[in-house]
Amino acid sequence: MNSFQGIEGVTRILATYLVQARYEDLPAEVRKEGCRTLLNWVGVAVGGAHHETVQRAIAALKPFSALDQASLLGRSERFDIMNAAFLNGVSSHVFDFDDTHLKTIIHPAGPVMSAILALAEYRPVSGKDFLNALILGVETECRIGNSVYPDHYDVGWHITGTAGVFGAAAAAGKLLGLNEQQMVWALGLAASQPVGLRESFGSMNKSFNPGRAASNGLFAALLAAENYTSSDAMIEAKRGWAHTISTKQDFSQITENLGSHYEAALNTYKPFACGIVIHPALDAAIQMRNEYQLTADQIAKVELKVHPLVLELTGKKTPRIGLEGKFSIYHSVAVAIVEGAAGERQYSDQAVLDPVVLKLRERVVATVDPAVKPEQVDMTILLNDGRTLHKFIEHAIGSVEVPMTDQQLEAKFLDLAKGILSDEQARKLLSLCWDVEKLESAAEIAKAATATS
Amino acid sequence: MNSFQGIEGVTRILATYLVQARYEDLPAEVRKEGCRTLLNWVGVAVGGAHHETVQRAIAALKPFSALDQASLLGRSERFDIMNAAFLNGVSSHVFDFDDTHLKTIIHPAGPVMSAILALAEYRPVSGKDFLNALILGVETECRIGNSVYPDHYDVGWHITGTAGVFGAAAAAGKLLGLNEQQMVWALGLAASQPVGLRESFGSMNKSFNPGRAASNGLFAALLAAENYTSSDAMIEAKRGWAHTISTKQDFSQITENLGSHYEAALNTYKPFACGIVIHPALDAAIQMRNEYQLTADQIAKVELKVHPLVLELTGKKTPRIGLEGKFSIYHSVAVAIVEGAAGERQYSDQAVLDPVVLKLRERVVATVDPAVKPEQVDMTILLNDGRTLHKFIEHAIGSVEVPMTDQQLEAKFLDLAKGILSDEQARKLLSLCWDVEKLESAAEIAKAATATS
Repeated sequence: MNSFQGIEGVTRILATYLVQARYEDLPAEVRKEGCRTLLNWVGVAVGGAHHETVQRAIAALKPFSALDQASLLGRSERFDIMNAAFLNGVSSHVFDFDDTHLKTIIHPAGPVMSAILALAEYRPVSGKDFLNALILGVETECRIGNSVYPDHYDVGWHITGTAGVFGAAAAAGKLLGLNEQQMVWALGLAASQPVGLRESFGSMNKSFNPGRAASNGLFAALLAAENYTSSDAMIEAKRGWAHTISTKQDFSQITENLGSHYEAALNTYKPFACGIVIHPALDAAIQMRNEYQLTADQIAKVELKVHPLVLELTGKKTPRIGLEGKFSIYHSVAVAIVEGAAGERQYSDQAVLDPVVLKLRERVVATVDPAVKPEQVDMTILLNDGRTLHKFIEHAIGSVEVPMTDQQLEAKFLDLAKGILSDEQARKLLSLCWDVEKLESAAEIAKAATATS
Repeated sequence: MNSFQGIEGVTRILATYLVQARYEDLPAEVRKEGCRTLLNWVGVAVGGAHHETVQRAIAALKPFSALDQASLLGRSERFDIMNAAFLNGVSSHVFDFDDTHLKTIIHPAGPVMSAILALAEYRPVSGKDFLNALILGVETECRIGNSVYPDHYDVGWHITGTAGVFGAAAAAGKLLGLNEQQMVWALGLAASQPVGLRESFGSMNKSFNPGRAASNGLFAALLAAENYTSSDAMIEAKRGWAHTISTKQDFSQITENLGSHYEAALNTYKPFACGIVIHPALDAAIQMRNEYQLTADQIAKVELKVHPLVLELTGKKTPRIGLEGKFSIYHSVAVAIVEGAAGERQYSDQAVLDPVVLKLRERVVATVDPAVKPEQVDMTILLNDGRTLHKFIEHAIGSVEVPMTDQQLEAKFLDLAKGILSDEQARKLLSLCWDVEKLESAAEIAKAATATS
């Protein structure tokens, strides 16, 4: 596929690839990762659907959308596709529990899936074509992200929104059947609409960003489909995207090995609903709990040796609300041992006040050890019966080295859907996600993900 | 009004001002300039309404907007307010004939007027409050533009779209009655959605930018009105807008003399539908034509001494289509003498092939003279009867020094409306624009600007 490199112009090389790339060209392991990306995204979008952030966005936008073209996952309302793309994108990021391309810290599915699932409800598309578009969208945003990372992120851009808009435009453009010139324009109109600054982290504005990247990318593709023009070189030109928005530009990251190397295959999924620095400790806690069938009352003390960053970021000793629990290594380890999980439920306002968790939390001791790397943890559990248990984690579950298993992804999915979809509906939806390649219409997934309230 | 300076935080200082500023506080000359800004914008929006660029955008968006909340100026279709804001913004910039804040090259009215006129049709507002919001929106975008210009523009951002989104959010937020905290969030959500890169100049993407800035700013304000949160310091924070998007940040441009100094009063309007470098020559040509009642057949030769940039940018000797005429000093001077104007009509495909214009064009000679400044021209006309006429222009009409008169603005307006609105309708619309402060509902302007086809 290196034939693309001979064509002049980064934007055009990418567009040519996107227009030509077929589902049949995708290696099996890339398709598989695409299914996992899809499934994880549907889970987090359903799970976040009733968050206050989403409620406020719906209240704001409802008066301006009268069409019932597309579903909101985990809800009963329907919107025009542009607003549905935005709202599902917000919902899927609101727990900070979505997928991560670790090389760039892009959360790839939010912009892409939100755009194309809404579009698929308006314009029928087979599951195979849908999966192809999803993978191409993720590939596009991660490659463009690679070309400017880390400078672009360091200065303050929320790369999920700035690179994500290209992913959404590419994937939506693929489903719309754009020709090469139209795809060039779609990428150009996407380049004109970057979204998100890191300063907004901690506010509702953070989940706004993948949502708006989705609707901006979709907007770009729809205009390009009607031959609304842009420049032919918006990514690489002197006053184009990469030079304007970053001090680093490595265009080979975009154009090399298209169709043979897949960034989309490097996607990862969070097993735990909190910042990644606590993940090794949570992994150790849950593994030991399950191996030794531990209960809280058996435990005299939990001793952790951690990287300095862990206490810097998550050293909160007495969290009072759920969100604070995410910044407490103490609560996290305790609740993980008690419940065997660290999903959104374990970071609820109730969970941080649970007496059993509280009692165990007081017995968790964390010590900084500069020899421990950020991806590692050293955990020792002293039991009341005098036994000492020990676990060292080299790479936490959810990393590229130790990916979440399909079963773990399913458990996460079902946990997120709990209380929003019935267990039967959630399991049916799970099957549809795994079987996306067999679906006559990808819209079935959206329909199966809606709730009655 | 310097009391605002004591409050910490640029974003909050600006928000506090915007929330408190009343129509009654505006000096008369600022109100007057606001009316001129409004009138000029309505004219260009009506005039551009049937351009191919607008047609394609409407074709793309029509399937996703079922509501008839707001008008498209110069057309019969109605859209939801978000899409109407976008489309009117495109229409108003498509001729590159809109207003200019010369210190930053921002075209201020496009983002602001497009957002608030659509909003005014959905949520009734008095003409006074509307004018106040317009002026505050223009003030906001020009001040924010000043804080990062020229570095921000030089690197490649289309400042009309990046600063414009703040103007749209501020003005829409004012009309929505946001409180201070909500206004802070509206500015924050606006900061998250900059639009436009200079690389796209020359394509339809250029007029996309003020349109999208309008809809993005409106989107931000509507979300903030439902308490959708952002950071409290998105403009000034380390990883906020100004530091991320520019190497220069002069926040005093935003916060100083709010309520006493008005950038909005420095707005200018183009008398001619072409790049500003030809304006001195056009001004000279039209003045001499009118003074001496010249006709083409009287003229033996037109000799120009011009700044080097004029021939560099507009040295095309034989334009074949209207757009090329804008890059021809020869066509421009000839058509201006023949028709006494240089509006969009004088740059049509027919105009550049008109035999009378063609014949005169061949007798126009332009010479570079480094002593002539960009805002100047030295013109000599040799007549067949032996007379020699001479005119030196120090500042062209439409500059800050020699602003267009109200009569000239009216003539431009009526010329733009020709063929789209009846003469009677155009004159009625003109009156409504001048009388905006007396209107019970500003939406009257939008309604009066719609066409039957």
